[in-house]
Amino acid sequence: MNTIDISAIKSPSDIRQMDEKQLKDLAVAMRKALLEKLSAHGGHVGPNLGMIEAIIALHYVFNTPEDKIVFDVSHQTYPHKMLTGRMQAFADPTHYDDVTGYTNPQESDYDLFSLGHTSSAVSLASGLAKARDLKGGKENVIAVIGDGSLSGGVAFEGLDYGATLGTNFIVIVNDNDMSIAENHGGIYTNLRMLRDTNGAADNNLFRAMGFAYRYVHYGNDIPSLINMFRSVKDINYPIVVHINTMKGMGLPVAEADKEKFHYSAPFDLKTGESCSPAAASMSESYDDLFANQLLARMKDIPELVVISAGTPGAIGFSPARRKEAGSQYVDVGIAEQQAVAMASGLAKGGARPVVALASTFLQRAYDQFSQDIALNHQPATFVVFYGSMFGLNDETHLGFFDLGLLSNIPDLLVLTPTCKEEFLAMLRWSEDQRKKPVVIRVPGGAVHSDSKITILKDYSCPLYEIVRKGSRVALIGVGTFLPVMQQAAENLAQKGLDPMVINPREVSTLDTACLDSIKDFELIVTAEDGIIDGGFGQKVASYFGDTHIKVINLGLPKEFLNRYNAVELQRECNLNPDGVTNIVLSTLK
Amino acid sequence: MNTIDISAIKSPSDIRQMDEKQLKDLAVAMRKALLEKLSAHGGHVGPNLGMIEAIIALHYVFNTPEDKIVFDVSHQTYPHKMLTGRMQAFADPTHYDDVTGYTNPQESDYDLFSLGHTSSAVSLASGLAKARDLKGGKENVIAVIGDGSLSGGVAFEGLDYGATLGTNFIVIVNDNDMSIAENHGGIYTNLRMLRDTNGAADNNLFRAMGFAYRYVHYGNDIPSLINMFRSVKDINYPIVVHINTMKGMGLPVAEADKEKFHYSAPFDLKTGESCSPAAASMSESYDDLFANQLLARMKDIPELVVISAGTPGAIGFSPARRKEAGSQYVDVGIAEQQAVAMASGLAKGGARPVVALASTFLQRAYDQFSQDIALNHQPATFVVFYGSMFGLNDETHLGFFDLGLLSNIPDLLVLTPTCKEEFLAMLRWSEDQRKKPVVIRVPGGAVHSDSKITILKDYSCPLYEIVRKGSRVALIGVGTFLPVMQQAAENLAQKGLDPMVINPREVSTLDTACLDSIKDFELIVTAEDGIIDGGFGQKVASYFGDTHIKVINLGLPKEFLNRYNAVELQRECNLNPDGVTNIVLSTLK
Repeated sequence: MNTIDISAIKSPSDIRQMDEKQLKDLAVAMRKALLEKLSAHGGHVGPNLGMIEAIIALHYVFNTPEDKIVFDVSHQTYPHKMLTGRMQAFADPTHYDDVTGYTNPQESDYDLFSLGHTSSAVSLASGLAKARDLKGGKENVIAVIGDGSLSGGVAFEGLDYGATLGTNFIVIVNDNDMSIAENHGGIYTNLRMLRDTNGAADNNLFRAMGFAYRYVHYGNDIPSLINMFRSVKDINYPIVVHINTMKGMGLPVAEADKEKFHYSAPFDLKTGESCSPAAASMSESYDDLFANQLLARMKDIPELVVISAGTPGAIGFSPARRKEAGSQYVDVGIAEQQAVAMASGLAKGGARPVVALASTFLQRAYDQFSQDIALNHQPATFVVFYGSMFGLNDETHLGFFDLGLLSNIPDLLVLTPTCKEEFLAMLRWSEDQRKKPVVIRVPGGAVHSDSKITILKDYSCPLYEIVRKGSRVALIGVGTFLPVMQQAAENLAQKGLDPMVINPREVSTLDTACLDSIKDFELIVTAEDGIIDGGFGQKVASYFGDTHIKVINLGLPKEFLNRYNAVELQRECNLNPDGVTNIVLSTLK
Repeated sequence: MNTIDISAIKSPSDIRQMDEKQLKDLAVAMRKALLEKLSAHGGHVGPNLGMIEAIIALHYVFNTPEDKIVFDVSHQTYPHKMLTGRMQAFADPTHYDDVTGYTNPQESDYDLFSLGHTSSAVSLASGLAKARDLKGGKENVIAVIGDGSLSGGVAFEGLDYGATLGTNFIVIVNDNDMSIAENHGGIYTNLRMLRDTNGAADNNLFRAMGFAYRYVHYGNDIPSLINMFRSVKDINYPIVVHINTMKGMGLPVAEADKEKFHYSAPFDLKTGESCSPAAASMSESYDDLFANQLLARMKDIPELVVISAGTPGAIGFSPARRKEAGSQYVDVGIAEQQAVAMASGLAKGGARPVVALASTFLQRAYDQFSQDIALNHQPATFVVFYGSMFGLNDETHLGFFDLGLLSNIPDLLVLTPTCKEEFLAMLRWSEDQRKKPVVIRVPGGAVHSDSKITILKDYSCPLYEIVRKGSRVALIGVGTFLPVMQQAAENLAQKGLDPMVINPREVSTLDTACLDSIKDFELIVTAEDGIIDGGFGQKVASYFGDTHIKVINLGLPKEFLNRYNAVELQRECNLNPDGVTNIVLSTLK
C-alpha cells in the first residue's frame, strides 16, 4: 500500500490525476486522520465517516469550484474541507480549531453557503442553477442532501421547483438510513424500498416529482461513485442520484450505534467511551429533568404525548426512554412545522402535547406558532432547549432569537423559569392546563436550584415575583439571569443601596400592576438571555417611556456571533454581577 | 325538477336522507345562491364553485362533526358553511357579512381551525388522528387540501408523517389544476399525469410516500364522490383520495378565466365585468408601479429576476406581464421558503433576485430570511406588499407582524418608504446594489406622492431625514405614517409648537447620530404601521431609556384583530393627526 501524504493535498486538482488505487488509499488516510481528530476533539462522527468516498468522487469528477456543490446538512463536510485547502485543520492537532463544523464561505470559495439548519440546499442550488441559466453559464450545479434533512418542508419545496428547471440540476441524496436518530416518515419508507430493489421499486418519490433518477448501491465505493457521477456530469435536465452510504463507516462502535456517534465529545477509539470529563461529571441536566417528569406523568395520563423534531437526544429522550414512552413519544423527523401544527391538532383533539425543540430550530415553524397554535388558542406546551447564550455557539445554531420571536406573537404565553424547581412547576402546570398555548424556555447554563423560588398554581396571568424588596432601583432578571441580578443586588447592598430584584416569570405580557408599583423608582435594569432588539426589556422601556424613570436594557447584540466565548460575551454585555453593579452605580451617581 | 328550499337546511343531518336527485337539486340551488352572493358581495369565486359537490358528498357520507374535516385552504369552504348552520349568510343578502371567508371555530363546531395560510391541514389533521388513537376513539379524520396549497413545505411534512400513522387518516386532494394562478412545480406534473391516466400513472407521489391512493375523475359528480367516500369511510390506514374538480364550475366566465375569478370583487354574472366602483377608479397602485419598473429594467438587465410565491396578481404580475418577463419571472408556487432560499442562491450566482411577498405569508419563511439570506449576506431584494393596517383585515391574513419580525434579524436592512417616489428609488437602488439583503415595505393605503422627499444614492446606512426642522418635540413617522406626522406637526404649529418631523427611512438600525442630535428634546413620538411590541419605536425608547427624554410609541396592539375597520383602528391607536396632536399637547403640558 502506497502511503498518501494527505498534507500535500491543497485543492481538488491534487486528486484529479490519481488512479483508482491512490484514491482508495486517500480515503483510508483521510479516514484515519478524521478518526484521530474526532476522537481527540469531538465533532460530527458518523455523518463524515460515511461521506468520505462520495466527497472524494465528487471533487474528482466535477470541476469544483466552477462546478458548484451545496452541502446539506453541512455537518457532513469535514472530508470536503480536507480536500479544499483545509487539510491542516484535520491533520495537525494544533490547527484543529481553525475550521468551523459547517460549510463557511469565509473559509473557502469551495463553500458556497453557511448552512447549518438543514433542508435548504436544494432551494439554494436551484437559485444557483437559475442564475447560471439567466447568465448563459454551463457549470454543473449539485445539491447534496441527506442525513435526515430530506424531511424538512423546504427540501420538498426545493425539489418541487427544481424538478421543473429543465436544465442541469443534480441532487445527490445521501441515504444512510438515519437522521440524528432513526428516520421517521413516509419518504424514508420509500428510500428503503428503493435500496431494497436496487433503485427499481415501483414507487419512486423523485420520479413522481419529475426528476430522472439513478441509484448507487455501494455508496462507499469510489469507482462506483465515479462512474455514476461521470454519467450525470453536464446532464441537461434535473436528476436525483440516490447513494446508499454507511453512517459511521470505518469505526466499529459508530457503525454499531449510529445515534450515539452522530455527534460525539472526545472518545476512546476502541471502546467508544467518552473521554470528556465534563460529560462524565454532569450529574444533572435539564433534558433529564424534563424527560423524567414527562415519563412519570405519562403513565397516569395516556393522552400526554411528547413530540420531537428529529433531535430526541437533545431533549433527554434516549432510546430507552423512547421505548418506555411508547406511543406517547412521537418523532416527526426534521420537520418543525409538522411538530408545531400537529401539536395544535393534538390539543384540539383533547390530547396534551408537549413539543420539545432547540431554540435555533423552532424559528423554522414561526408561521405554525402564529397561525396554527396562537390564532387557534390551542393549549399545547412548547419546551425550548438551548434558548440561551450558554447554548450552541455556532453562527448557524444560535439560541438568542427565540425570545423576541415568540413573545411578540399574540396569545402565546412565554414563560422564563429561573431554576429547575420553577421549570418543573411551570411544565407541570402547562401539561395540565387547557387555557392557552405555552412556551417554556429552559434556563441556560448548568442546572440551577433555588428552593426559595415561589411556585404558583397558575402561570396564565402576568404576575412578577419580587424576590428581593428594595427601593430606588429595580433589577429585573429574566430566566437565566435572575441569579445574576440577585448577586448584583448583594453587591449593591454593600455599597449602601437597596435594590429590588424581580423575577418576571414570563416575557410575553407586562405585569403592569407590579411595574406601576415601582413607578417612582429612579432606575430599572433589565437583563435577558437573548438579543435586546424586540425583546422583553424594550417593552419595559417603552412602557415607562413617558415617565422619568430610567430604564437600561441588558442583553445580547443583534449579531450572528460565531464560536464566541460565553464568559467573555457575558462580561462584554454587562450580563454578570459586576457589570450590573457598575451600571447601577454609574447611572445613579 | 323539485325545488330545494336551502334555507331549511340547518345541519348536515338535513341532507343525509336525501336521494340522488335531491342532492343534485341541492347542488344546483347552492350554486345559484353562491353566484348571487359572490356577484353582489365578492369573495373567493372559483374555489367554492368547484367544491360544492365534494362538500355535499363529504357531509352526506361522513358523520360530521364527530367525523372531523380540516379544510385547506379554507377559502373553499363557503359550501361547507352553507350546510353547517350558516345558510342564511349565503341565502339572505342582509346576512351576507355574518360569516368570515375562512373556517372559524367561533362560528361553528364544524369548523375545527381558523386556517387561512394554507398547507397545514394535513399536519393539523394528523394531530387530531393521533389524539383519537391515544384516547381510543373511532371517528374518521379527514384533511381536504388543494387549490395550490399542496406545494407548501408543511404539507409535505404532514404527508410524510401522516403516511406512517397506521390508522384511519383520509387526505382528500382537491385538484383543480390551479393555484391562485396556474400551478407550478413537479408535484403538479404528477397530478396531471394521474388525471390523464385515471389515477393509474406509473409514478404516484402519494403511493411513494406510503399512502394508499384512489382517484375520482368526475370530482363534481355527487354519486361518484359518494361512492368513493363510502368506500374509504372507517378505513384503518392512511389513504389519499384524489378528486379532479373544476375551478369556477357553473360560471362560464370563471371557467374560462380561472385566475381572474379565483377571488373577485362584485361582478356582473353574465359579462364578468367588475361592478366595484373602487376598482374602476383605481388609477394607480403600488403593484403596478412595482411591476412596471421591474419590467422596464429587465430588458436591460438579463439577470434581473422577479420571484412570486403563488400570488402574481397581488404583486402586479398579470398574465400579460408574466409573458413579457419570460424567464425573468419565476413563480415557485405556494412555497415561500423556496422563494426566499432560492433568492439567496440566485444572488450568490450573480443574478439580481427581487422576491415579492405579501406580509402575512412571508413569515412562513422566517428561517430562510435569517439563515439563507441574512447569515449569508446575499444581496437579494424583498418587496413586502400588504405590510400595513390598511392591507388585508382577516385575522388569518394580518400584515402587522412583519416589521418587528424582519427588523430584528441581524444584517437584514428593512426599508420603509413613505411615498411612491421613495419606494421606486429604494427599489431601484436595491436592484443595483451588491452589498446586503434588503427588505422594502410597500406603504399602506392609497398611493401617496411626495415630490419633496429626498432621494438617496445609497440606502445601505441608517440616515434619517429631517423633513421638518423643529424644537422640543420630534415626530418620527415610519413609512405609511410620515404624512400623518407631517399633518400633526402642522396642527401643533398652529398651537404654537414647532415639532421636528423625521422620516427614518429604515427600521432595522438606529441612526444614532440623528437621535443624539435631538437628545435635549423633551418628547419623541414614534408611529409605525405594525404592532408596537418588538418594533421600531421600542428601539428608540430603549435607546433613550437612560435619559430624561420622554418617548411615546404609537402602533398597533399585539392582537389577532379580525375584520376590523381601519379608520376606527387608526383613531383608537392615535395613529391619525388628531391623535398625535392630542398626545403631544397632553404630554408637554
